[in-house]
Amino acid sequence: MSRLLDGEPTVVTAGVALFEEALAAQAVPVVPVDWRPPLDAPGSPPVEDALARVLADPRRRDANATAVSRMLAAGARLVDVRPAGEALGLEPGTFLHAGPPINWERASGPMRGALRGAMVFEGLAASPEEAERLLAAGAVRLEPCHHRSAVGPMAGVVSPSMWVFELEDPANGGRAWCSLNEGLGKVLRYGAYGPEVIERLRWMSAVLGPLLRHAVAATRDAGGVDVKAIVAQMLQMGDEGHNRNRAGTLMLLRELLPTMIDSPFPQADVARAVAFVAGNDHFFLNLGMPACKLATDAARDVPGSTVVVAMARNGTDFGIQVSGTGDRWFTGPANTPEGLFLGDYGPDDANPDIGDSAITETAGIGGFAMAAAPAIVRFVGGDVPFALATTRRMYEITVAENPAFAVPVLEFRGTPTGIDVTAVVRTGILPQINTGMAGRVAGTGQVGAGLVTPPESVFPAAVEALAELAPPLAEPAPPAAGI
Amino acid sequence: MSRLLDGEPTVVTAGVALFEEALAAQAVPVVPVDWRPPLDAPGSPPVEDALARVLADPRRRDANATAVSRMLAAGARLVDVRPAGEALGLEPGTFLHAGPPINWERASGPMRGALRGAMVFEGLAASPEEAERLLAAGAVRLEPCHHRSAVGPMAGVVSPSMWVFELEDPANGGRAWCSLNEGLGKVLRYGAYGPEVIERLRWMSAVLGPLLRHAVAATRDAGGVDVKAIVAQMLQMGDEGHNRNRAGTLMLLRELLPTMIDSPFPQADVARAVAFVAGNDHFFLNLGMPACKLATDAARDVPGSTVVVAMARNGTDFGIQVSGTGDRWFTGPANTPEGLFLGDYGPDDANPDIGDSAITETAGIGGFAMAAAPAIVRFVGGDVPFALATTRRMYEITVAENPAFAVPVLEFRGTPTGIDVTAVVRTGILPQINTGMAGRVAGTGQVGAGLVTPPESVFPAAVEALAELAPPLAEPAPPAAGI
Repeated sequence: MSRLLDGEPTVVTAGVALFEEALAAQAVPVVPVDWRPPLDAPGSPPVEDALARVLADPRRRDANATAVSRMLAAGARLVDVRPAGEALGLEPGTFLHAGPPINWERASGPMRGALRGAMVFEGLAASPEEAERLLAAGAVRLEPCHHRSAVGPMAGVVSPSMWVFELEDPANGGRAWCSLNEGLGKVLRYGAYGPEVIERLRWMSAVLGPLLRHAVAATRDAGGVDVKAIVAQMLQMGDEGHNRNRAGTLMLLRELLPTMIDSPFPQADVARAVAFVAGNDHFFLNLGMPACKLATDAARDVPGSTVVVAMARNGTDFGIQVSGTGDRWFTGPANTPEGLFLGDYGPDDANPDIGDSAITETAGIGGFAMAAAPAIVRFVGGDVPFALATTRRMYEITVAENPAFAVPVLEFRGTPTGIDVTAVVRTGILPQINTGMAGRVAGTGQVGAGLVTPPESVFPAAVEALAELAPPLAEPAPPAAGI
Repeated sequence: MSRLLDGEPTVVTAGVALFEEALAAQAVPVVPVDWRPPLDAPGSPPVEDALARVLADPRRRDANATAVSRMLAAGARLVDVRPAGEALGLEPGTFLHAGPPINWERASGPMRGALRGAMVFEGLAASPEEAERLLAAGAVRLEPCHHRSAVGPMAGVVSPSMWVFELEDPANGGRAWCSLNEGLGKVLRYGAYGPEVIERLRWMSAVLGPLLRHAVAATRDAGGVDVKAIVAQMLQMGDEGHNRNRAGTLMLLRELLPTMIDSPFPQADVARAVAFVAGNDHFFLNLGMPACKLATDAARDVPGSTVVVAMARNGTDFGIQVSGTGDRWFTGPANTPEGLFLGDYGPDDANPDIGDSAITETAGIGGFAMAAAPAIVRFVGGDVPFALATTRRMYEITVAENPAFAVPVLEFRGTPTGIDVTAVVRTGILPQINTGMAGRVAGTGQVGAGLVTPPESVFPAAVEALAELAPPLAEPAPPAAGI
């Protein structure tokens, strides 16, 4: 002890800057450490005790290894394209939506807009106004996509007559579904519901869906289209799989083209379908998302695992689900993305965060793979060093690297995969999500694209729930004699 | 002067390490500078005098600015696909080849193999053996592609019945041509000439060429296919435009698909053509090359300019042409690439550097844009830091950056463009070329892909020629009085 006091002290500071600044003002050398207190759920007791209990859970390490190894092993094959009613057993009068559960009263503008459009599309209402009255009266049952092994970008509204991609995970045996991508601008998923939106959806169900089904059927003997392989390739081609899907879309087109051309469908229909897919750089997103859903679903329900298996937003709430806590949602108010706006739109036009597409980040691509897609900063904001730093930062809150998803510029390091809620709470580092921005007002459509994070509160809430399920802490051992 | 000797000396060393090491052994601090003497042409007088004269040429600065501004302004539109005989005025019995001029006697294995195949393909010989006898007897006139505003990858053999892409530069008015890409493996351009090679070439002339012509014709009202725009996009999608052309090929396919599908050709032909293009990641190379040829040709013949306008190899010699020295070739023995080999092939199987594809590096893509394509190191060798460092190093020997070809990971810096022979000679930094490797033995085909540089000697030779054309050096001014 005396030696400690003999020499000049070396002062290390952490947390609030007050102490560091006071010493620096007195010319005392200080080594500041970048440390933040654990995240706390507002209005709840501090999370430290729960965190300690979860970290001490003897099941945690193996449980996370099991969860993430299933996530990494998951495959994703496109095996069919068919109507949602048939594929998902979706009854007439039931609509799926993005994010955790929500009702009409709490639904945001774009969610309400998409629901109105779906009512008209299904012939349940003659006009958006009638649709609104019926929806307000509870004429339709709303259910999260996630509750039916499905995912939907933005509003994520799926009604029985819409067609969906059907993907299969040969490794774990799961299935997942996602709607077909409509393109950008005034589209249902961004809350638009005008006549051109409805007409496009009708064409997608009447022509595009059946044609894609024909093309996919021809690949079924070979096990379907290998969507996971396309995701792996696109990360080498400047896509991150959430807001950049250019290479992915082109590769999908390449896979399906030969059998689309060689089909009994009228040549004009084939030409329009090919032009529709080729003209929409985001078409592949609706295949990447269910591929990620397969991977994250494979990691569900491992007792003691602290790995996140879903992040999803309904435009009002942001929710996460965790492997060790089953189907329970931990929700908080959705943040509003910051980024770049289309045309004359600005921050006031943006709705809070919406969509199931954060399943990409949950599975380790999207914002987590930004280093693979530096050009995306021209679309979502930020700069190239930020894109590289983001992927590097995400390694601090994840339990694994995905060897199948190598990032060339990081010397082929695998993408950071498997968000650990305890790491998020401990470090205060929030998962980075790239996202589109929907107009706040129903009917607007897309207003921009940007960057967003979950609300902090959902992670401590998950830790509290995990703590309740963890075995009690062992009594601390008595101090050893002589110390 | 006295002050210089008062204090401790700071020793700066350059060149050979002997001086630095001797001082370091005596514990004298040394600042070593990475400097090499200028490149010299073996057997020629030192290049210093010529270099000084060229650097002092008062025309040089403006001439290089003119040359490179034309290079950067050049556009590239695919406007037609037609037989080489018609497009290039190629007379029966005249064959084009890659690189600087060469005759049968000095031709390498892959060049001889490709010439044999072309003889059989044209019906000028019934067998490869007969072809060889006729070629040795001088039955065919050989001419470099470059002499007809054309470029050909690897052996680059173009005979009158082969179909070529025709590109136009709307900015400078030039035209350039290139053969259609046959795919990888056993193909004519790598020196293979078996029956499957000839059959493929026949199908390309009978079906693929006419079908592509039909598809391109439909784009002509819109000015043709914008090949330069595709090059710009591919650099954001992990391609460097020489040995990676995946995204470029997919984007070309997307452009041409609608009119290929909607054509009077039999559906089976369309399906085979689409599958052929879609199944060959290098198909776009033969469009990127003539796009680069248009850019570099635009920079030709500016008196006093030291900018390289062609780098090309015939499998025996490596040649460069420089803006200020007209059509003169400066040649030296081609180096053999180092890289990665297919199957059981090894370094002993590789032919020296061959092909006009180094036109890509001449125009600032390919090896110069490796930072845009870090995944390419898995194909040509090297590692990711090498890929990034290579692009950065090329800025030291080029006079401009191409704002149209932005490299995202370098924060959208334009690719290094316009190789200055004086900078190469001064720094000793050689242009980096990515390349395929042909089998040394005629008939083998591709054996690998790798990295190569030009022989050093061609750059001092060009500087000597530029010096002969430069105005005489002014007499040194008499020393000012008092010094």
